[in-house]
Amino acid sequence: MKIILVGATGTMGTYLAGTLEKEHEIIRVASKGSDIDTDITSVASIEKMFLKAGHFDALISTAGPTFVGPWKKLNNETFRQGVEGKMMGQINLVLIGQKYINPQGSFTLITGALTHDPQINFANASAANGAVEGFVRGAAIELGNGIRINAVSPTVIENSPQYFPYFPGEIPTTMKQLEYAFRKSLFGSVTGKVIRP
Amino acid sequence: MKIILVGATGTMGTYLAGTLEKEHEIIRVASKGSDIDTDITSVASIEKMFLKAGHFDALISTAGPTFVGPWKKLNNETFRQGVEGKMMGQINLVLIGQKYINPQGSFTLITGALTHDPQINFANASAANGAVEGFVRGAAIELGNGIRINAVSPTVIENSPQYFPYFPGEIPTTMKQLEYAFRKSLFGSVTGKVIRP
Repeated sequence: MKIILVGATGTMGTYLAGTLEKEHEIIRVASKGSDIDTDITSVASIEKMFLKAGHFDALISTAGPTFVGPWKKLNNETFRQGVEGKMMGQINLVLIGQKYINPQGSFTLITGALTHDPQINFANASAANGAVEGFVRGAAIELGNGIRINAVSPTVIENSPQYFPYFPGEIPTTMKQLEYAFRKSLFGSVTGKVIRP
Repeated sequence: MKIILVGATGTMGTYLAGTLEKEHEIIRVASKGSDIDTDITSVASIEKMFLKAGHFDALISTAGPTFVGPWKKLNNETFRQGVEGKMMGQINLVLIGQKYINPQGSFTLITGALTHDPQINFANASAANGAVEGFVRGAAIELGNGIRINAVSPTVIENSPQYFPYFPGEIPTTMKQLEYAFRKSLFGSVTGKVIRP
């Protein structure tokens, strides 16, 4: 299977690429240091990436820039980090990528537990996650050719201990659990679902 | 109670203003034909509206422009209708309005059943709704001074029969049910909730 992995240089992306490349062709996409460096906040950059990657069977995204910080600094400008990054960045990967994906292919986007379990400093991520999850449900009934779409929604990630203090009481999602959630979307038959690892 | 009602000239807003004005002071806000005409896609216009309205006890929004139409016409540009309208329009009403709202006040935004029950032509609304619902949860734990925030999530509205064909099998939300959901948020003590009428 030819899989485009967006966010390939991040904590989640690095792990997923490492495990999936044993059995599949992985095209690593990130803002820099990847096979096809791409700015997901730019429609033109996304178009260019798909043209270079060519037809593919699945796209995984673990790319999710959002504004993290004090509520008093959250305004129309800072809010755009999550709108353009985790939200529209991922949504545009689907809206544009559907022209290049093979029949029976799949998109798997990243959201997070913050959609329903908010934490101080992360309101922007809660909104971006909610948008992506709503989009996944809406897109699943529109995409043709047997193409599926799901979201994976972990809580704080085992390999990102720097975030543990911001997620009190959250049992970290292990890398193995994260991998299995992506496998469920990639190789299963579910669509329109938010998969909690 | 002094209540700012955004979307006052729409189907929901007209009904809510009519019933709530029997007991409360209602400031009607809409794009035109209201007490304070406002473009909610403009931060400057929202700022101006709050300056004119002055301090208030509650803000209700029933304003939700989104792109409704065929999936093949959904792209980065058309998607912005929901991003700037129902999503950032309502989110900015809170981010800016928190400077003008009285202690113990409340914000009540509008989302909709499409967040979880998608329909053909409405993926943009599913995303905008999801964003607002995520934001409501995130904001509820950040707002100070006893200020609350909730969303009301109806399905297709009784008084909008032109939309019935797009919502097969959905039992329409009656105007009375809608009113009660807003009353729960306005006069109850809930916060961070998505209230389904």
